Amino acid sequence: MPAIGVAALAKDHLVFFSPSGKRERFPEGTTVLEAARRLGVDLDSVCGGRGICGRCQIVPTEGANPKLGIKSAADHVSPWNAVEARYADKRGALEAGRRLGCQAKVCGDLVIDVPADSQVHRQVVRKRAEAYPVKVDPLVHLHYVEVREPDMHDPSSDFRRLQEALAAQWGLADIHADTAVLKGLQKALRAGDWKVTAAIRKGRDLVALFPGFRDTLRGLAVDIGSTTIAAHLCDLVTGDVLASSGLMNPQIRFGEDLMSRVSYVMMNPGGDAEMTAAVRGALQELAAAVAAEAGIGTDEILEVTVVGNPIMHHLFLGLDPTELGGAPFALTVDGGLEVPAREVGLSLAPGAFVYTLPCIAGHVGADTAGVVLSEGPHLKDEVTLLVDVGTNAEIVLGNRHRLLACSSPTGPAFEGAQIASGQRAAPGAIERLRIDPETLEPRFRVIGSELWSDDAGFPEATAKTGVTGICGSGIIEAVAEMLLAGLVTPDGIVDGTLAARTPRIVAEGRTFAYVIREADASGPRIAVTQGDIRAIQLAKAALYAGIRLLMDHYGAPSLDRITLAGAFGSHIDVKYAMILGLIPDCDLAAVGSAGNAAGTGARIALLNKASRAEIEEVVRRIEKIETALEPAFQAHFVGAMAIPHKSDPFPHLEAALGRVFARGTAPGEPGEGGRGERRRRRG
Amino acid sequence: MPAIGVAALAKDHLVFFSPSGKRERFPEGTTVLEAARRLGVDLDSVCGGRGICGRCQIVPTEGANPKLGIKSAADHVSPWNAVEARYADKRGALEAGRRLGCQAKVCGDLVIDVPADSQVHRQVVRKRAEAYPVKVDPLVHLHYVEVREPDMHDPSSDFRRLQEALAAQWGLADIHADTAVLKGLQKALRAGDWKVTAAIRKGRDLVALFPGFRDTLRGLAVDIGSTTIAAHLCDLVTGDVLASSGLMNPQIRFGEDLMSRVSYVMMNPGGDAEMTAAVRGALQELAAAVAAEAGIGTDEILEVTVVGNPIMHHLFLGLDPTELGGAPFALTVDGGLEVPAREVGLSLAPGAFVYTLPCIAGHVGADTAGVVLSEGPHLKDEVTLLVDVGTNAEIVLGNRHRLLACSSPTGPAFEGAQIASGQRAAPGAIERLRIDPETLEPRFRVIGSELWSDDAGFPEATAKTGVTGICGSGIIEAVAEMLLAGLVTPDGIVDGTLAARTPRIVAEGRTFAYVIREADASGPRIAVTQGDIRAIQLAKAALYAGIRLLMDHYGAPSLDRITLAGAFGSHIDVKYAMILGLIPDCDLAAVGSAGNAAGTGARIALLNKASRAEIEEVVRRIEKIETALEPAFQAHFVGAMAIPHKSDPFPHLEAALGRVFARGTAPGEPGEGGRGERRRRRG
Repeated sequence: MPAIGVAALAKDHLVFFSPSGKRERFPEGTTVLEAARRLGVDLDSVCGGRGICGRCQIVPTEGANPKLGIKSAADHVSPWNAVEARYADKRGALEAGRRLGCQAKVCGDLVIDVPADSQVHRQVVRKRAEAYPVKVDPLVHLHYVEVREPDMHDPSSDFRRLQEALAAQWGLADIHADTAVLKGLQKALRAGDWKVTAAIRKGRDLVALFPGFRDTLRGLAVDIGSTTIAAHLCDLVTGDVLASSGLMNPQIRFGEDLMSRVSYVMMNPGGDAEMTAAVRGALQELAAAVAAEAGIGTDEILEVTVVGNPIMHHLFLGLDPTELGGAPFALTVDGGLEVPAREVGLSLAPGAFVYTLPCIAGHVGADTAGVVLSEGPHLKDEVTLLVDVGTNAEIVLGNRHRLLACSSPTGPAFEGAQIASGQRAAPGAIERLRIDPETLEPRFRVIGSELWSDDAGFPEATAKTGVTGICGSGIIEAVAEMLLAGLVTPDGIVDGTLAARTPRIVAEGRTFAYVIREADASGPRIAVTQGDIRAIQLAKAALYAGIRLLMDHYGAPSLDRITLAGAFGSHIDVKYAMILGLIPDCDLAAVGSAGNAAGTGARIALLNKASRAEIEEVVRRIEKIETALEPAFQAHFVGAMAIPHKSDPFPHLEAALGRVFARGTAPGEPGEGGRGERRRRRG
Repeated sequence: MPAIGVAALAKDHLVFFSPSGKRERFPEGTTVLEAARRLGVDLDSVCGGRGICGRCQIVPTEGANPKLGIKSAADHVSPWNAVEARYADKRGALEAGRRLGCQAKVCGDLVIDVPADSQVHRQVVRKRAEAYPVKVDPLVHLHYVEVREPDMHDPSSDFRRLQEALAAQWGLADIHADTAVLKGLQKALRAGDWKVTAAIRKGRDLVALFPGFRDTLRGLAVDIGSTTIAAHLCDLVTGDVLASSGLMNPQIRFGEDLMSRVSYVMMNPGGDAEMTAAVRGALQELAAAVAAEAGIGTDEILEVTVVGNPIMHHLFLGLDPTELGGAPFALTVDGGLEVPAREVGLSLAPGAFVYTLPCIAGHVGADTAGVVLSEGPHLKDEVTLLVDVGTNAEIVLGNRHRLLACSSPTGPAFEGAQIASGQRAAPGAIERLRIDPETLEPRFRVIGSELWSDDAGFPEATAKTGVTGICGSGIIEAVAEMLLAGLVTPDGIVDGTLAARTPRIVAEGRTFAYVIREADASGPRIAVTQGDIRAIQLAKAALYAGIRLLMDHYGAPSLDRITLAGAFGSHIDVKYAMILGLIPDCDLAAVGSAGNAAGTGARIALLNKASRAEIEEVVRRIEKIETALEPAFQAHFVGAMAIPHKSDPFPHLEAALGRVFARGTAPGEPGEGGRGERRRRRG
């Protein structure tokens, strides 16, 4: 406690704030809000102490606290007043014991509780056990002000008088506004009868000006994937997601995968501008959709964060992605970027900004930065592996001491492409599959039904969708189950000798296939061919080799945790992924899915301003490993062609399954034909 | 001189720079450029010491300087080297005695002359005697850099490597770039083979990136008038105007004068956007015209400054001017504004900024701020009157101790409107007129010919244009000459009794007119009617009353200097303006025209960065007088209806003319009919 003068002591009272523990003496008549502000206690206010917003609710406690040496009492605050009565009348009664901090005045020693919902910086605790809580501390804040009317004797502009009001009433000096914001200034001031709520960003930029009092603060977190774009409208006060929506990325009409989109740009001058317009148009559409769902206007969206792979990131920003199409994969820009929303074609709050998370390398993008921000490996001691599987796999490995990242060209097999019966994950696709090791008969589930194919009612349940193909998670389970049932050797050869035991093993030229179902009214013939298994082997070997490369560089013989990010990661069964040798051995309890972690990263960057500097700093010190330049990659790749692996041990998995894997030779070695060659870098 | 260690003294040499007078000891082998930089001597360089730009030329002097205690000699600098030879070979020989400061190394005590053209901050001395010199010190500077190529082992982006190069080679940390600039980054780096010239604004923003070496720096100064828009392309190194061009303001199709344009906005929703698009389109056209004239691309224009009256200012910025159409004439924004050029629809250098000068009040705009910046009354002791006459007159009065400003509603009479034979200043318009006091015969000159109407060859010289009407300066001279010839009384009555002496005085209803010429093949009848004289009296009385109001507020019984700004000010003869009583009495030698002072103000703000803060500070302390709220205005107005004035003395003018004016009664007093009423605020 600082030294207090004798004169001050006479009428001053000791005020203690909980849970912050801050305390100080204040003169009689000081409001609790004013006392909190002077001490830097986290107590919210939008209206600046006018009794309008109700954000500064506090609880004066009663009774003696010998430890603190304070005797607090109900009558140590001024009585309930007319402003509080008006507030309760208009906006609903306060909870028992609560007061408005801006009205309750100190008239004796006090212990004040600040409830969690009166704090500016609330914690958003996420559902997953390993996820760390996020503090809600956005860049934009609302400030209600009353502005002096214009006057012939004083020709100062409306904006200058608004600036003066923000300075005088909130201590916000030299507020800046773009012309887009200035455009609506005069109308807002007059519509609000010179009472307005200013949305101020970083204590500096006027983002929007709303007539009258307003206390809702909204932002948008966006994940631009090559295939789909997802947007989440967030409440920047509570941290809640108010509405979510997704859309196919309209760039698909220029090319299914990333590489064909870059090719489109190379072949078609102006093609980048077309794709930029397409993705921005889709984003505006999504913003309108989530705003409508939440019952607000798009002009109430005050801030946006965006993640995406480097090519999506560049196209969204209007940057030509051509250089990302070939070595050395030079990004135009890699840092986190703040740009006015209207500069990237978005019509939201007039001064809204868009923040794009940093890119890690030419093929490890802002989406991976989002995954890192969401999962926080840089905050933990345990050695964590993060894998985001798309047509390229982005891999991050390490802990708070050191982080490494690389990208590995898995190709589109995990998305059901290049698979004979493959399809995208959609209703009707086989997503789960089991094979009876005795009868070698399969049973499966399709997307859209909870029933297994041998359950009663399955034909009826799937009548609408049919059984149309096999998706990424389905093919992984199929190959893994084929290994467990002995239908496939560790080398990845479909064992033709088993044709004697089951009619499901059929010859196709010089190789064999496993028939899951024959064509009928509800769908086509679905089989796993030798080619499918090769495609899956190549894909999983590329991923595994990338992971091993990072483990080598880190010097980590094993992993403490594996987290799979992305849609693919949420749908696959981690056990089957490990049986297939997609990921290294690890305690199965420590292997999980983070869902759309990239999108969660965007949300964190939206809710918490410090997280932006944090992820930018982390990204800068991530060591980037270029798989194409690593001689060891090829050796790891060859070893990983076997299922689960030619030589690497899988003790945790073997213990969990109660069996020991046979080890194959590597069929991907040179001489095995064109299939073993390195895949093109991008899918 | 700071203390120097013994070890250093052994091989150090004393270097003295002229004209700065800075001196210091430097180790043998230090380049002169390096020495200049360490001492903060103003020595230019664009290439950063690579011997490419030739901006750092210096002259090592010879001989002993006892006063300085230095003996300088030609061999106290290293010999002419290969880089200098290459420079001279490619870019022309250096002047005798000159060296490249980046190549010449210190090897003995030296006195170094820095020629004016090697200084970054050159003085631009303007032609008019009273104009103060302007230091060329723009916001944008060029920096040549060599950037590291991308590398698979280092995934840093092209922009990050450019940032690193700017930091390492120029000490410019954390350079920022908008997406518009980032868009062309990769192409520029590759086109320049990783050697580029960066245009950096305020040491912070990348405005443009040019492949290879470049040392030309261009900016545009713009004056948006209600009638015409003028643009000057300036060299930001020398301060020279490279090309100028003007265009009719295309907003004229929405309304001739300001007030009718505001009405258009009020009547037509979206009308402001139409006018904004029109003025921006015209500006882009002008930029293209001056760029073409100078043989450059518009993408080489790196900075723009704009002046204009409040309504032009607001419409250019995309701000609705409706509030400026009525009391209390509230501006949206009054401060100087920096906005990205592309945000105001201009396609110049990708990161170019536009600076609009501050507005003083709702009807005293950035154009008047430009006049103040150009004329600098705030720098002088003499009490200066600045008058910019359009359909509204803007008036500034004061000196470095105090400045006042007001606007007075003169109406369009001075532009030839509301005058029976009036027309805009254009070829064929009478601009000069004399009346023989004996014969009462007029002679005149028209725009487009230097001959007087009684000169031989006048009909031939004016055959093309004809004699079509009388413009603002013509009507002023006509009325003043009519007063001097006794054709008009001091009260402004055309003396009908003189019809007896000359057939040129003719009755028109109950009043009389003076016929300058009768209709013939070369043009219509041109006469000065009683109504014309009333219109001129009302206009000049409004102007004079505004000036007197400021003199009252200032407490200035007389003026030290009167400067007329704008096109009107450049065309009128100041003596006639004073005879008419348009301006108060003053030493005629101290009354002059500043030409397009508003445009000059824009040019100064373009060339000299400090001038922006200066004019913003000056504008903030200008005291704004609202004529409509001043009871004294009406009395001043009534007194000023007489020619030259009912009571104010004109000693300087009377001395110059060698005659004393008779004083009239004021015909504008109440009861004189509707003509004496206050004019609408805006023309």
